[in-house]
Order: sequence, then structure tokens, then C-alpha cells
Amino acid sequence: MQFQLTNEFIEQVEELIANNNGDALEALLNELHFADIAEIMQELDTDEATYIVKLLDTEVTSEILIELDEDFRERILDRLTPSEIADELDEMDTDDAADIIAELDDDVQKQVIGHIEDETHAADIVDLLRYDEDTAGGLMAKELVRVKETWTVAGCVREMRRQAENVTRVHSIYVTDKQGKLKGRLSLKDLLTAPERAHISEVYIPKVDYVNVHTEGEEVARIMQKYDLEAIPVVDDDGILVGRITIDDIVDFIKDEAEKDYQMAAGISVDVEADDSIWLLTRARLPWLILALIGGFVSVSVLGTFSGAMTHHPELFFFVPLIAAMAGNVGVQSSAIVLQGLANDSLRGSLWKRLVKEVLLSLLNGFILAIILVAGGMLLLGLDIMFGLTVAISLISVIITASLIGTFIPIMLEKRGIDPAMATGPFITTSNDICGILIYFTIAKLILGF
Amino acid sequence: MQFQLTNEFIEQVEELIANNNGDALEALLNELHFADIAEIMQELDTDEATYIVKLLDTEVTSEILIELDEDFRERILDRLTPSEIADELDEMDTDDAADIIAELDDDVQKQVIGHIEDETHAADIVDLLRYDEDTAGGLMAKELVRVKETWTVAGCVREMRRQAENVTRVHSIYVTDKQGKLKGRLSLKDLLTAPERAHISEVYIPKVDYVNVHTEGEEVARIMQKYDLEAIPVVDDDGILVGRITIDDIVDFIKDEAEKDYQMAAGISVDVEADDSIWLLTRARLPWLILALIGGFVSVSVLGTFSGAMTHHPELFFFVPLIAAMAGNVGVQSSAIVLQGLANDSLRGSLWKRLVKEVLLSLLNGFILAIILVAGGMLLLGLDIMFGLTVAISLISVIITASLIGTFIPIMLEKRGIDPAMATGPFITTSNDICGILIYFTIAKLILGF
Repeated sequence: MQFQLTNEFIEQVEELIANNNGDALEALLNELHFADIAEIMQELDTDEATYIVKLLDTEVTSEILIELDEDFRERILDRLTPSEIADELDEMDTDDAADIIAELDDDVQKQVIGHIEDETHAADIVDLLRYDEDTAGGLMAKELVRVKETWTVAGCVREMRRQAENVTRVHSIYVTDKQGKLKGRLSLKDLLTAPERAHISEVYIPKVDYVNVHTEGEEVARIMQKYDLEAIPVVDDDGILVGRITIDDIVDFIKDEAEKDYQMAAGISVDVEADDSIWLLTRARLPWLILALIGGFVSVSVLGTFSGAMTHHPELFFFVPLIAAMAGNVGVQSSAIVLQGLANDSLRGSLWKRLVKEVLLSLLNGFILAIILVAGGMLLLGLDIMFGLTVAISLISVIITASLIGTFIPIMLEKRGIDPAMATGPFITTSNDICGILIYFTIAKLILGF
Repeated sequence: MQFQLTNEFIEQVEELIANNNGDALEALLNELHFADIAEIMQELDTDEATYIVKLLDTEVTSEILIELDEDFRERILDRLTPSEIADELDEMDTDDAADIIAELDDDVQKQVIGHIEDETHAADIVDLLRYDEDTAGGLMAKELVRVKETWTVAGCVREMRRQAENVTRVHSIYVTDKQGKLKGRLSLKDLLTAPERAHISEVYIPKVDYVNVHTEGEEVARIMQKYDLEAIPVVDDDGILVGRITIDDIVDFIKDEAEKDYQMAAGISVDVEADDSIWLLTRARLPWLILALIGGFVSVSVLGTFSGAMTHHPELFFFVPLIAAMAGNVGVQSSAIVLQGLANDSLRGSLWKRLVKEVLLSLLNGFILAIILVAGGMLLLGLDIMFGLTVAISLISVIITASLIGTFIPIMLEKRGIDPAMATGPFITTSNDICGILIYFTIAKLILGF
């Protein structure tokens, strides 16, 4: 039942476009789900994709445009007239329409809005443009079913049928007072089972979760997940119901956030994809590499100050990458665990207890690794016992330090209101490299005395 | 409106439990959402949490139990009798009940099932236990509203009202033939607007997305996201409708998957949390550290073979951590981008094009970094020009190699059916450390000749 995209299929589509055979192409594509057509279009060039947008019904193409990658969509929209874009937006829910219009240049925006037929729809879209992308206001749609508490159930069903035409999915019916203030909600099921003459005020559920337009997206996602909500109403500062957010928008949001965190941990600061331009990829990657390079300079200087050890203990330098790698890996592990705890809000209890735990954990891991290291070093590389002891003690100390740095830097950042995700990847590895090398040579100097 | 958990509140709850003041505690907690009570319970010890489970209505506690962390829940269930557990399961949807019963020992499982009052419910739960946790069968619930295509709309509304009592959320009504084979679906909205005497066969939507019981969870998540579904029906190998999966279960699944990927990239192989035991944390972290240690041994040997360089070019060794760090960081960046592309299924086009792109990208990044390195090295550290050239050429070569390794190892693993997420974090850093050092000294030997 699932559509499987093949190269043959894409070639067939390209050929039909090249031959300007619109009827055959329309017949072929009309069999497919819009999400599948969007997938096909991503494989075509901009002109071919624009051809399809102009060919198919706006009912379908409006859905397709929402699915496309942002930069690809922008290139297609560049090839459409303001009135053609307005036709697409007319078919979209207000939240999607606002997202797309926000990508256009200011003067094109105005022209497009002027061409939208449905004036209420246009006004709703303009209204949504006021809000920050990552707030409840930026995530919400204006489409929802609202009834007044003074109505009867029968009147409500009639009104709901009328309003539901514009609302793709009815999760809840929201109840407001005369001024439009959110009072509660009703499920469709409740409406089906309530006596027809009852007043809404007698049957609605007054306990309703809601968010303010300025609530951050991350917080909205947390609330909807925690309370297992499929939709949440949004109110303004006066408590007036202004929109609703549905779970499908939040799923995208959660995925995007997870991808951003993942990229941040890998030292990629802008949201990029494998198929982005070399320039964009460089912009995302280079800053972190420069940071690592500066850290590298520091480690060069540190090693330089210990150059005296080279005459009697050259093998000390052979173990530098091993020590640095262990410090980096332990630091990344610790910071990843803490960051997830912070993100899930599951990190409670005293800092003191956490400190003791990290030290114990590092001691356990460090001892096991030190035994492997010394045994391996003596058997395979023929190290002497004093040198083995030096490396072993260094390794344990480095692991303890790295895990403490990895654990507490994110916590400190969070306390100071800085995004703790900054403290991962290159940042943690670099600082742990330097600390690790410093500790290693200091201990070596104390034990071996050079 | 949002509940804010405070230490004072927890102390109040603990005091009421200590004084065995059940009435006051019940009055206090009944004001709260079950998800908030669950949050409070996570802060209590097992006996206190069990006290609350025994105190409150099973209608509430069944929801709470679903929210709790698995190991904490297990400890509470250990303190309940099979009949008490059965009372809780009686209130749960079949999918949640099956998840929880799967955590119990075999003999307790049997006793609990024997105590479940509703026999159909018990049979449904037993049926769900047959499926793998990560398949559609393991994710689905048995609760759904089904109607036969031969019924009238009026009969369907009657029947639906009856069935809907057991179904928390009605997303769609599923239409089957007499044998129970899935034929299509109806939305509640369609049902509200269709003429009462029409037959279902005239009004239902025959195009319906569905998955097989054996479809993997990841695939279910992909389909539901791609087609923006809030629920998807599940059929067995004969096409018989056996259950449905709702988007809230998939949200949890997506989050869990993202967390696993993130942890894997940080070198943590078992799903752990900051508050897990030291033993569990060690089990998750130590294997990767041992891998890194073995990699470290290899780099020690590599450096040992170039020990001859120490007499004339000791400063070569000072740059080892810098080169290793750059190799590691570039490799992690490249692999992260490729892995996300693989996960999103957005990686298409020829390998050859990708190779050229990675080389160009690395050349660009490498040149910029090499210029910074040489300028900094000559100004700050007073390096001579030949040595600067050596480090610069090495850096560019190392960056190209590391980005190719980071890009193509995940792609190769994926092609061989191995989880490409294995090729991140410690694995990529370790292999790039070694390759980087080897390339660096080989180039140095060629240029400086030692």
C-alpha cells in the first residue's frame, strides 16, 4: 500500500514534463498522496517542480508546498505570481500560510496578502505574523470550533457543523463566555451523548489546559506531552481564546529540536542537511573547528612547557593522544547524560550528591580502564612499573576531572540562563583535552621527576 | 494554571503519609492532574508512593502508573497483590496494560491476568503480549470503534455511542467487511453530516493508510509523520483489523529514538538517565571507553614508530593533540550530518557526487584553518616556514580523510544492514585519531625527512 519512490518513476515524470503532457502527468499524480508527490518533487529541478504546482489543483498543491524543504519551496514561490501564491495560501490552514508567507520578501508579502480572496483568512494570517516563530503564537492556527456557554446542545451541533467545514480536525470544541474568554471545552463524544436541550454551561468541562500566546514552543511541547494532549487552546494576555495548537505541529517541533540538539553535540551550529550548499555547511561547521584549533594551540603550548621530559621519558609523549581521547570521551558521555536530564526536567536532588556519584562512577570506570592500560602496556609495550603507575594514576585523575567538567559545566550554564547544549561536543572535548594533558604531565613530573 | 512542584509541597505530602492522614492527602491530591501526581511520586520513596497508589481511585492511579519510570513502577508493583495490580490494569487501555504486565515475572503475570474482571479485556491484553515491543503489534491498542459496511448511518451512530465508551479518543471510525477485513474509514465529522438512512458503504472513505502488525515501530512513526496521521489502523497478515496506534504513543517513541541516537553519538550504549545506578551507568559507558582505550594503544604504537623524529623535530609531537582533535571533530560533524540524512531518508543522489562535495567542503574548511594555524604558529610560537608548511598540509589532508571516513562509514554500514548510528562518537573519533596521526607523521617524514 505504501508508495515506493523509484528512479524509473521520476524519469517517467520528467519525460511527461519535457513533452508538456499535462493530462497524462495529472492522471499519474492524482493517484498519489500529496506527501508522496512532495517526495517526487524534491527529486526534480525547480522548473519541473513549478510545472507540477501550476498543473495540479491548489487543494493538492497547497498541501505539497507545506511538505517541501524551505529553500526548495522558496525557489518555486519565486517562479509564481503573487496571485498564484495567494490561491495556494487560500487553501492552507492559517498557521501553515503564515509560516510560508513569512519566508517571502516584504513587498511580495503585501501583494500576496492583497490577493487572498477570503478576507477573514487574510486578516488571520496577518495577525499570526506578529508572533515569534518559536512561541505558542507562532505555532498556533486560528482554525478552531468555538461555542458560547449560553447556547444549547442542539444549537451547538448546528453551529459546529458550520464551523467544522474550515477545521480539518476537530479535537475539542472550545467554550467561551460572551467576551470570548476561554471557559472550558467539550469533546465531540460529549456532544453526541448530551441531551439536545441542555445548555452548554451544564455539560462542558471547565478544567482545560491552555497556553499563552507568548509561551515558548519548548514549554508547549512539554505540556502537551506531559498531559497527553492532542490539541491545546491558546489565549492572549486577557484570557481571550485566539487559536489552538495541534499535536502534529508539535511532533515536527520535537523532531526539529532533537535534531538541533544532536547537531549541536556534533559541533554544528546552524540547522543544516547533507544536501545543503558547501557555503552553508561551512558556516555551520567552521566556527566549532576554529574553537577546537584554538584549543589545539593551547595544548601545543602546554606540551611545550613540558619539553624537558623528552630527554628521559620520550614515551610520555606517545600516550598524549590516549589520555586526551579518554578525557574527551568521558566528558562527552557525562555532559550528554546531564543535558538529557536537564531537557527532560528529570534532574533533581542536591549538587553535592551528584558530585559524589560522579566521582564514584569515575573511580570505578577509571580503575577498570587503568588495569587494562597497565596490563596491556607492560605486556605489549614493555613499559616499566613506575611509568605504568604514572599513566594509571593520570588516567584515573583525568577521568574524574573530565566527568566533573562534563557534568557541572552544563548545570552551571543552565543556572545562569545560558543554553546548556552549548557545552557539548567540541567545547567539552577541547577543554578536557587541555585539562587532561596538563594533569597527565603534572602527575608524571611528580612521580618521575624530570 | 500549570502546577509547579516545590520542595514544600513534597514535604507536606510526606508528612501526611507519615501521619497516615489519608483523607487530607486524598483531598490535596485530587485537585491535581494525574501527570502532576506522578511527578510528585517520583520524588517519594517506594513505600510512600505505594501508599498513594493504594489510597487513590484506580481511575487515577492507573493513569499515574503509566506515567512513572519503569524501574520505579516495578518496585511499586512488587508491593501490590496480583488482585490490586489487576484492578489497575482493568482501567487501562490494552496497550498500556500489556506494556506493564510484560514487566512482571511470568508467574505473577498469570495470577494478575486471572484477576482481571473484564474477560475480553484480559484476552486482548494476552493477545498483545505476543508481539515484539518495537513493532506495530507491540505499540497498538485493541480499543477502537469499528462498524460494518452494511450498516446504516443511524445504526452506526447508535453502535458508535456504545463502543465509544471504552475508547478514550475517537479519531476515526474504521469500516470492515463481514469477515472483519479493513475496508476504509469514516471521520466523526462525516458521520455527523451524512444522511441518517444512508448505508456506510455509500459514505465511507475507502482510501485508508494502515500498517501490518509486524511493521517496525520506526516505520510506523515515519508513515504517521509523513502522512500527518493522528491514528493508524493495524491489520494482521489476512488484512483483518486488529488494533490501532495513536499519535501520542508515537510521540513517545520518536522522543525515545532521538534520545537513543543522541546517547549513542555520545558513546552511551544502553538507555540510561542521570539518576540510574552507578552500575547501570558503567555498563552503558565502559564498553565505549574500552574501545577508545584500545584505539589509544594503537596511537601509542604509531607514535612509537616515529620516535626517531624526536631528536630533530620534537615540536612535531606537540602538535599531535591538535591534529587528533581536528580529525575527531571533523569526523563527528560529517557523520552526524550523514546519519540524520539516513534517518530522515533524505539522502539520495550518487555516492560519487557526495564524495566530490565532501572533498571540496574539506578543502575549503582545511585551507581556512591551515592559514589560521600557520599564521598563529609562526607569530605566537615562532615556527619556521618548513615546519608550518608540514603542519598545514597535514591538517588539510587529515580534514579531508576524516570527513570522508565520517561520511562513508555510516553509508557503508547502512548498506550492509548494520545500524549506522554505531559509527558515531567514540568509534569515529578513535579511528580518526589514529588515521590523523599516521597521516601527519607520514607527511612530516616526507617534507622534513627524519
